[in-house]
Amino acid sequence: MIDFAKMNGLVPAVVQDDESDEVLMVGFMNDAALARTRETGFVTFFSRTRNTLWTKGETSGNRLAVRRILVDCDDDTLLVRVERQGDGNVCHTGERSCFFREI
Amino acid sequence: MIDFAKMNGLVPAVVQDDESDEVLMVGFMNDAALARTRETGFVTFFSRTRNTLWTKGETSGNRLAVRRILVDCDDDTLLVRVERQGDGNVCHTGERSCFFREI
Repeated sequence: MIDFAKMNGLVPAVVQDDESDEVLMVGFMNDAALARTRETGFVTFFSRTRNTLWTKGETSGNRLAVRRILVDCDDDTLLVRVERQGDGNVCHTGERSCFFREI
Repeated sequence: MIDFAKMNGLVPAVVQDDESDEVLMVGFMNDAALARTRETGFVTFFSRTRNTLWTKGETSGNRLAVRRILVDCDDDTLLVRVERQGDGNVCHTGERSCFFREI
């Protein structure tokens, strides 16, 4: 059972490349987004700003095919290991990962 | 500039082993936790349940020494690459990573 209660129905979902182990992005899933992800095999988030489900890559084609999903020790965070589709550039800026700037 | 506003003063912080690339845990940081992390060089989170800062490993000795901190494309999530100290078992259950159960 995933603990969606701690964050008003959402859990953070870390997306990691199953081959390179790069951390690609972090989104949020609600119960419906997780169900959609598992049913379709493609990573689907809940958009907090648009208040709707969205499948990563639905327009760009850079979808994220699920290999494995893990949950953390206190059941409130997901780690989704994926295979990249399309050109492999996960970030909307064209970078491979959304984490490309050091602070 | 980190966008703490989107989540009421907090951002998710993904902790990744800088050598093995394992995702170890996810916590939340507020502005003070990030400042403490950068000043001390050890990962410090804000505990939502205890409403206080806590340095990972402050009792167990399994602290997480910061190697690099990256921010994502929309400035609201951190990726902290670390070197494990102590016995290297990051999870309070004694596992190496908090993500040890597949769903």
